Amino acid sequence: MEHVPFPSWPDVAPQLIAVAAGRAPADTVIQGGIWVNVHTRETLPDHSIAIVAGRIAYVGPDASHCIGPDTQIIEANGRYMLPGLCDAHMHIESGMLTPAEFARAVIPHGTTSMFTDPHEIANVLGLDGVRMMHDEALLQPVNIFTQMPSCAPSAPGLETTGYEITPDDVAEAMTWPGIIGLGEMMNFPGVTNADPKMLAEIAATQRAGKTVGGHYASPDLGPNFAAYVAGGPADDHEGTCEADAIARMRQGMRSMIRLGSAWYDVETQITAITEKGLDPRNMILCTDDCHSGTLVNDGHMNRVVRHAIACGCDPLIALQMATINTATHFGLERDIGSITPGRRADIILSSDLTDLPIELVIARGQIVAENGSIQVDCPHFDWPDHARGTVHLGHTLTGSDFEIHAPDGANSVRANVIGMVENQAPTKALKADLPVQDGLVEGDGETCQIALVERHRATGSVTNAFVSGFGYTGTMAMASTVAHDSHHMIVVGTDRDQMALAANRLAEVGGGVTLFKDGKELALVELPIAGLMSDNPATEVAAKADTLVAAMEACGCSLNNAYMQHSLLALVVIPELRISDKGLVDVRTFEMIDLLEPAE
Amino acid sequence: MEHVPFPSWPDVAPQLIAVAAGRAPADTVIQGGIWVNVHTRETLPDHSIAIVAGRIAYVGPDASHCIGPDTQIIEANGRYMLPGLCDAHMHIESGMLTPAEFARAVIPHGTTSMFTDPHEIANVLGLDGVRMMHDEALLQPVNIFTQMPSCAPSAPGLETTGYEITPDDVAEAMTWPGIIGLGEMMNFPGVTNADPKMLAEIAATQRAGKTVGGHYASPDLGPNFAAYVAGGPADDHEGTCEADAIARMRQGMRSMIRLGSAWYDVETQITAITEKGLDPRNMILCTDDCHSGTLVNDGHMNRVVRHAIACGCDPLIALQMATINTATHFGLERDIGSITPGRRADIILSSDLTDLPIELVIARGQIVAENGSIQVDCPHFDWPDHARGTVHLGHTLTGSDFEIHAPDGANSVRANVIGMVENQAPTKALKADLPVQDGLVEGDGETCQIALVERHRATGSVTNAFVSGFGYTGTMAMASTVAHDSHHMIVVGTDRDQMALAANRLAEVGGGVTLFKDGKELALVELPIAGLMSDNPATEVAAKADTLVAAMEACGCSLNNAYMQHSLLALVVIPELRISDKGLVDVRTFEMIDLLEPAE
Repeated sequence: MEHVPFPSWPDVAPQLIAVAAGRAPADTVIQGGIWVNVHTRETLPDHSIAIVAGRIAYVGPDASHCIGPDTQIIEANGRYMLPGLCDAHMHIESGMLTPAEFARAVIPHGTTSMFTDPHEIANVLGLDGVRMMHDEALLQPVNIFTQMPSCAPSAPGLETTGYEITPDDVAEAMTWPGIIGLGEMMNFPGVTNADPKMLAEIAATQRAGKTVGGHYASPDLGPNFAAYVAGGPADDHEGTCEADAIARMRQGMRSMIRLGSAWYDVETQITAITEKGLDPRNMILCTDDCHSGTLVNDGHMNRVVRHAIACGCDPLIALQMATINTATHFGLERDIGSITPGRRADIILSSDLTDLPIELVIARGQIVAENGSIQVDCPHFDWPDHARGTVHLGHTLTGSDFEIHAPDGANSVRANVIGMVENQAPTKALKADLPVQDGLVEGDGETCQIALVERHRATGSVTNAFVSGFGYTGTMAMASTVAHDSHHMIVVGTDRDQMALAANRLAEVGGGVTLFKDGKELALVELPIAGLMSDNPATEVAAKADTLVAAMEACGCSLNNAYMQHSLLALVVIPELRISDKGLVDVRTFEMIDLLEPAE
Repeated sequence: MEHVPFPSWPDVAPQLIAVAAGRAPADTVIQGGIWVNVHTRETLPDHSIAIVAGRIAYVGPDASHCIGPDTQIIEANGRYMLPGLCDAHMHIESGMLTPAEFARAVIPHGTTSMFTDPHEIANVLGLDGVRMMHDEALLQPVNIFTQMPSCAPSAPGLETTGYEITPDDVAEAMTWPGIIGLGEMMNFPGVTNADPKMLAEIAATQRAGKTVGGHYASPDLGPNFAAYVAGGPADDHEGTCEADAIARMRQGMRSMIRLGSAWYDVETQITAITEKGLDPRNMILCTDDCHSGTLVNDGHMNRVVRHAIACGCDPLIALQMATINTATHFGLERDIGSITPGRRADIILSSDLTDLPIELVIARGQIVAENGSIQVDCPHFDWPDHARGTVHLGHTLTGSDFEIHAPDGANSVRANVIGMVENQAPTKALKADLPVQDGLVEGDGETCQIALVERHRATGSVTNAFVSGFGYTGTMAMASTVAHDSHHMIVVGTDRDQMALAANRLAEVGGGVTLFKDGKELALVELPIAGLMSDNPATEVAAKADTLVAAMEACGCSLNNAYMQHSLLALVVIPELRISDKGLVDVRTFEMIDLLEPAE
């Protein structure tokens, strides 16, 4: 399926003018609604909108001069007419869905623009993978802008990715039609140290006139932060407290605050506006990562806006943070983000600005969802075979691949243990005294095994370590090829044989998430595309994910969405302790550390 | 003199990072000031700024880590540190000064960025003239961004300009380094009627990713206004009342409100913010037109900000309207408009945010003015001969060129008279019964003669009509080659022989403004460049202009800056009645009308 570019404002200006002047009929008129004006921060009752060629031609108190015999009339019946919502930073892969199926899931929630960083697939399939995501994105009936991934690997030297992204890749991507900027620059030590490769990527983006996404995941707001800001990133979504948000805005960045499936960073930061009274124009809402269950059950950007309002934010300011603020940030305010002439006709009808029910969604002038039901096709890209077969283990694994050998003669060892924390991305660097049986270090109570299984180059490499916090009991293992950011395979288990079973199963199905208990597979989420995504509908993926959650509970883990945390245990850019194909990484210092402490 | 581009952020990012991190010394550190943060709308005491390579590297509570043995230290001593001021829309030619001399005049007032539309020279010298202005602008130590003039002629068919601007000219200009967008699209009937030429200019600008300036000079906010907005202009500075400002902002335009030498549109529109409480992000301050006297005696953008504050605007909001709002509008917020890392180091020190004394001005990291005195060179472009000899009358004029013949046998006639209004651009369309002597219609009391003398093609054409409102008495005439927008020559006088004297005198000196009384020249402002500008300092031009004002007073006209109104009498895009080389123009209908009413 070929991408046909959506006509630009100048392409259709004669039509817009003719409709606005009353010389030609609109395709569609929405009449009798409350105009939510995100430029002036007002609600204006009794307004009407005329649409032609997918763009807004006229907004005013009376659009009768724009109505012809074939004009479709939509009665707003006094409801609010608000701009389609924008997600300013997100990863489609986190939904475990292709762009088409992600779009299909979020359109009924009123999301009409997304700024997506296909960082995950870049690690697995490189620039080619980014292009495939980009191409499927452009086929959709809503606006999916692609941020070119900047950091594959995220932490050079600390992990091995399937592919690496280079400055030349970035420069090339900047010429593609759907690229809006550079994806989050996670290598903040690289920027702070003026790493030429990172600066070349930033420069290529700035010279193309596009937006450099930031990712500064450190509480240090001193000179290191200042140096990062001086490097050029224009936004940051890694803030977690009010001081983080304020520091970013004061330094001329936009503070993106996120409510994802496992991110809860709005409540702690929106006080910069609601309590400190700072100018809200530089705060933006985003999701960063949402899994399918959230999309199916809770919503998408509508959930974030509702939450911001529940946190005390004025509804109009919250809406600005999900519409015009985002559009302005990406240089798109003449194209999206408000209901004003010339812009894409991306409009939501809602009867309440606080609860924000999404009753009708119009994108580019056509009705795309009504009362929660999608009304349009979301076309699929024809994913090639090499995108569907990406789990290469080298050999069939056995329990012995997961053995951790103790120093000769030791009865117990002190190990560095990754401490998983519910609902948070950062882990704790813990230490535990673990028993030794038959020369092998064993888990104990809260602490079980974790392994990073190489899957890109079939090296057969398995890195073993320990993790705590899941609460697993019994004989089980869970494996996932969603393993941020290099997306090898993370296996967590209380039993080495179950770990081997789970890993081999994922190799068999081409990737996904599986859980084995007592030799039986309790749940499987198949993610055949890059081992990251399904091209089945979100409802199906979410249902399978529910069986996975149930299976985790059956194994003793009842934490909130803990499979997100599972998939983040190799994310070597967020503190404190992580696993990679190279070993254990202390992300406080960006250095490798030993699994076992030397005997005293 | 050759233009050396100012290094971009990515050009100097390694230096900025090194200074921010404390690994390299800053060129300059300003310490111990109050940081005026226009992003968050805060004042933050006890902050310091580190500068390197002309850009800001660091802003924080302590810049001691950025100081080396050769770092220049500037003590703010508790003063406010605010961003250099931006003039969002202006015409340098209105100062009757070249870009260099204009810059020299305004830099001590704290203006460090200007968005200038060299529309006047475009009418006289076409694209070539625009390029010369653009080239001199780029030589300056402050930021002068050029808006490509869109409308020469302003009103096609109603006047004849020296040159015409075409869509191809616009497309070419968009590739020049200093072009920021399209200058005010004055032909609003053209846009409303989808004139292909106007839409092609807008499209060329939008496709280049640049900003389309607007100019909608009509009180009609109905479908005509809607059609204009749908055509693409992104801002407008022609509003004169609160409803104008609100309508523009609601429609997704930025409302530029101006305080020029003869424009007083801030007080009537800023109430949209101060009383109606609309989001101020879309309101911007500008001057549009300032004559030299204003620059020398009253100030520039500092005058506008002070005035906005005096009108009740919060000082920080007023400053946002002259800094970050402007920068954001033109897509430059990562380069100018705030004191934050990466931006050009354009900084003002001031001890009071309300009176706004401009004590120190830094532009691109260097001190450019101190306590009102310029500290840098403002280099001149080498203006060629053809730019200095632009007054071509065809023949030496005599009194008979200004005769207005009455219908045979008439003793009195009813004439359409241009009614000049003090301090306003619009004129009134008046009618007056005028006496006839020896077959010629004569002025009477308030009404005197006006002539539009062709000067671009030496056609020898003189268009005669009547004007009222100046209050001239005695035997006098005043002539000006500043004659918006086609810049022929406007001559106003009570006596035809004096009119001829004045016109011939301007041909002799290559253009400017002159006033004759009883056969003697009372004042002369020489404007040899395009008949519009002097390359002498503003103080000299202002002094000469003062003699002109005195001369006007000696002739009975004591209105405020009435020579601005004189120069606008041929401006056939602003209602109600104007003169052009083609005759009298009713700008309410954009039609020619007869000078004399038919006898009843």
